Amino acid sequence: MRSLLLSRRDLDFLLHDWLDVGSLTARPRFAEHSRTTFDAVLELSEQVATEQFAPHNRAADLTEPRFDGDRVHMIPEVGEALRVLGETGIVGAGLDESVGGMQLPQTVVQACFLWFQAANIATAAYPFLTVANANLLMAHGSAEQVRTFVQPMVEGRYFGTMCLSEPQAGSSLADITTRAEPRDDGTYRLFGNKMWISAGDHELSENIVHLVLAKVPGGPPGVKGISLFVVPRFLVGPDGARGDRNDVVLAGVNHKMGYRGTVNTLLNFGEGRHTPGGEPGAVGYLVGEQHRGLTYMFHMMNEARVGVGGGAAALGYTGYLHALDYARTRTQGRPVAAKDPAAPQVPIIEHPDVARMLLAQKSYAEGAVALTLYCARLLDEERTAATPEDRARAHLLLDVLTPIAKSWPSQWCLHANDLAIQVHGGYGYTREYAVEQFYRDNRLNPIHEGTHGIQGLDLLGRKVVMDGGAGLALLVETITTTIGKARAAGGEAASHADVLAATVASVEQVTAQLWAAGDPAVTLANSSIYLEAVGHVVVAWMWLEQVVAAAGRSGDFFDGKRAAARYFFRHELPRTGPQLTLLADLDRTTLDVRPEWF
Amino acid sequence: MRSLLLSRRDLDFLLHDWLDVGSLTARPRFAEHSRTTFDAVLELSEQVATEQFAPHNRAADLTEPRFDGDRVHMIPEVGEALRVLGETGIVGAGLDESVGGMQLPQTVVQACFLWFQAANIATAAYPFLTVANANLLMAHGSAEQVRTFVQPMVEGRYFGTMCLSEPQAGSSLADITTRAEPRDDGTYRLFGNKMWISAGDHELSENIVHLVLAKVPGGPPGVKGISLFVVPRFLVGPDGARGDRNDVVLAGVNHKMGYRGTVNTLLNFGEGRHTPGGEPGAVGYLVGEQHRGLTYMFHMMNEARVGVGGGAAALGYTGYLHALDYARTRTQGRPVAAKDPAAPQVPIIEHPDVARMLLAQKSYAEGAVALTLYCARLLDEERTAATPEDRARAHLLLDVLTPIAKSWPSQWCLHANDLAIQVHGGYGYTREYAVEQFYRDNRLNPIHEGTHGIQGLDLLGRKVVMDGGAGLALLVETITTTIGKARAAGGEAASHADVLAATVASVEQVTAQLWAAGDPAVTLANSSIYLEAVGHVVVAWMWLEQVVAAAGRSGDFFDGKRAAARYFFRHELPRTGPQLTLLADLDRTTLDVRPEWF
Repeated sequence: MRSLLLSRRDLDFLLHDWLDVGSLTARPRFAEHSRTTFDAVLELSEQVATEQFAPHNRAADLTEPRFDGDRVHMIPEVGEALRVLGETGIVGAGLDESVGGMQLPQTVVQACFLWFQAANIATAAYPFLTVANANLLMAHGSAEQVRTFVQPMVEGRYFGTMCLSEPQAGSSLADITTRAEPRDDGTYRLFGNKMWISAGDHELSENIVHLVLAKVPGGPPGVKGISLFVVPRFLVGPDGARGDRNDVVLAGVNHKMGYRGTVNTLLNFGEGRHTPGGEPGAVGYLVGEQHRGLTYMFHMMNEARVGVGGGAAALGYTGYLHALDYARTRTQGRPVAAKDPAAPQVPIIEHPDVARMLLAQKSYAEGAVALTLYCARLLDEERTAATPEDRARAHLLLDVLTPIAKSWPSQWCLHANDLAIQVHGGYGYTREYAVEQFYRDNRLNPIHEGTHGIQGLDLLGRKVVMDGGAGLALLVETITTTIGKARAAGGEAASHADVLAATVASVEQVTAQLWAAGDPAVTLANSSIYLEAVGHVVVAWMWLEQVVAAAGRSGDFFDGKRAAARYFFRHELPRTGPQLTLLADLDRTTLDVRPEWF
Repeated sequence: MRSLLLSRRDLDFLLHDWLDVGSLTARPRFAEHSRTTFDAVLELSEQVATEQFAPHNRAADLTEPRFDGDRVHMIPEVGEALRVLGETGIVGAGLDESVGGMQLPQTVVQACFLWFQAANIATAAYPFLTVANANLLMAHGSAEQVRTFVQPMVEGRYFGTMCLSEPQAGSSLADITTRAEPRDDGTYRLFGNKMWISAGDHELSENIVHLVLAKVPGGPPGVKGISLFVVPRFLVGPDGARGDRNDVVLAGVNHKMGYRGTVNTLLNFGEGRHTPGGEPGAVGYLVGEQHRGLTYMFHMMNEARVGVGGGAAALGYTGYLHALDYARTRTQGRPVAAKDPAAPQVPIIEHPDVARMLLAQKSYAEGAVALTLYCARLLDEERTAATPEDRARAHLLLDVLTPIAKSWPSQWCLHANDLAIQVHGGYGYTREYAVEQFYRDNRLNPIHEGTHGIQGLDLLGRKVVMDGGAGLALLVETITTTIGKARAAGGEAASHADVLAATVASVEQVTAQLWAAGDPAVTLANSSIYLEAVGHVVVAWMWLEQVVAAAGRSGDFFDGKRAAARYFFRHELPRTGPQLTLLADLDRTTLDVRPEWF
């Protein structure tokens, strides 16, 4: 039976035929690996996702984590799945061998995580946050912090979180008020409240490693005064033994529309419930230098943003496969041209409007997975590039793509889930079928790790203009290389290439016009629309890349790739036309509306 | 405090300044009425909606109807709200005085129902279906059926349903298998299973009046062999006394993502649990003539379709008002041009991207409500036109608009609810705020009473081509009249008019090209996209009508109307450009894709 989570056939195409991950084994970091080890870890991921994660996806939705005023209770299947995952070592799949990791390429690691996200996005959030946390500490933590916190995370014993938002400061991190007071022994004591903390409190792991943004009194105002701290739930002795309870106290859990299995918490730091070492305040350890916390946290946030996009893509993918399965088996009605009521009903996949909804889902889900893996491949490139120039290019391109890799799948794979419901008709609206949960779960993705609005400001206000416009120039140059290959391939690929070239030229021109406005308020007024338009251009490019990789190959799989690309170029990419026109016009509708007019 | 359900100010503008419902009182049917009676029933509706419907909206979501194998249990607030509503007489607001109704114009009745739908769409479904049922019987039932069933519905004692779908026949009504066997006394006995029956079984009313599609053995195949029957839950004696239990048996309830307060059932007719009169089969009474059932049912379905659009519009509206309220009070961040971190944070409504999301919601919700009321006004016109020609024109235009009035609000006011969540950020994703429920509730509307796909086929395959294209011609002629008024008004109205005129010309041309294809399969392959494009044109027209009605008037309310119209013309209507291009190209992407390619 075909998996309804993801298509391994498609992953193999993307990883090998397209991204050529095998070539990475020629680099020292990955020299121990081969196609065999890649295949083994992918197979293991599919197996654990299928056997341990998928079966309790609905149960965790129906019985969400409950806070009894003291601790969090959740269904035992979550802990069991995470225990099994911990045993596989997949949590450390991408981490250095020096800390017990497998040191696999991020491209492969990302593909592995897609299985868990497709099977159960809420349970997958625990290792997802743990890995991002470990990666941050590997990059910016001290040797002692790595030994004390990262190693147990790799072993699956400790889980991690990221603590940024506060009740009065969601998207506006400049306004956080959690303070970190230095102590003579080099540690800090933290006081404040953190909101929306996923995996913030639970009994799933021996310890929880919070990475917390806070301000050291006397520092500069705004984001420049933010520092980063490791604040464990339990203090850890020099021998690694669990010590006193730290003063991080669960104050409440949020009840969400979806993603229910991931406990989402309000945490109080230093409220006085516990007094580790006989002193008030939650004990924290500074990461790196004071006042550079947001820079470090962006390390984790950028990874989390691509990962959020990956989660959205995985949900879009599994929803698509569920809809496809339904459309192949459910019979209803007859073709337009054959209205004999005595003829048998046909599978609904034969109705063009159902085919349209399936093609749309395929183009969104496979396009989003491609983008996610492409970004992971850039990270591998950045980590293992032969020259500093190559490294810088990979870093810059990943930086430009990150807001799109986060927002595009969140928007369009949610739409894919909407279409998956629609393909199911009334059944799709019931909880007897899986797709309604995907739709609810996926609705979080346009919000957390920075809303669309934030990503739009990041893309247009920062990424495309940084280094004198080098970000956009590199993106255009990279897309242009693909266009060249597609033109050389000829046929439909070449005609797609022409369309994409014209659209890319429009984006360049519009970006220049926007920045020529001379007033950032005008430039950025429609940055969300800019984000959407550039997102569609980027995913069209991902489809052109796939068409090139499929060139000259025959069979249903490749015909399917070409059909989805055709759908994307004909039905989707043209959406950018009116968007780019609006942007070029420096439309002021949203800027000029007054609050009292509503 | 401003209501968060709907804006009475806006309703008054639409009903009086725009649709001039006062002029209807010059017609004999409405001669007893005046602005005073209109205002009174609107005020009463707002009051009952606010006091009886809104308070249990969340409770009915949290504790959905439960089937214990024998009967349905639900929270008592539902019954209490419906009892109070029954006492007001609003259920019969549009029905003839001869059956105890108020004989109000449908335009006013529709506005009243919006209040209940905004407050609690699930509880509002019971009277909604009852009224549609009563209207059908008024049009096609016998005098005895009207006396026996309609009168108690008007009194709020009986509730109604419509029973069309079966497990093997959802959208494809030709394939229903429920059979109705004639008996010598003129009654019928029904045998079969009906699926997705809203309000199909409950203890809320003395009796339930099912309107059931079934086939009389020996009739023609397909939809031409469908007849319509009244099948009450309890037989009714000649004196109106409740008689034997009919053999309509609840077989199960569906558990939905939203709209949970409306019990949705699987009903078995004639399964043998009861034997009224000592005979097997559910007793049914033929409505009108044999084999004309679908025609009669379309009476109810068309009304239900416009009503579904109204419900979607109401949910979009209340979501918008909730988002607006939040955006006015929630402070977060600072304007782009004022990044001093020491300055106080501003209400998020001041961020252009939030303003964009509010303007979008306003344009969708108010545009959808306008369309709903416009359709109701056409029904009034049809019922009370001075000449047969006027009557025929109103009927034809309503027929053309019905698929759009159903699908457009279902699509775009659901999107409005999505934006309402986004404006709330993480809070919007929690069940502590109302908007996530609106989003879940509204997701049903693109499905029931005919999916988008069905509405698209109806519009392009039937409505715009019927009577040699008279439907489209009339729509264009009517829009052109508005364009003329807007040009006369000058200024921005005139420039909107030019844009709309060009788009309407495109629609006419594209429709001709589609039908010139010579192959219905090609013509109809992208009918959903046609539906979307024409929907946006129609709502642009609704906005132009409002701009004309607001011409020369100043103040925040009218500036708001103009801003929303500006948003619609600049940000929304241009979406139709690529859609019309695709249609004109007779795109075959979805037609040519093969099932095995997926």
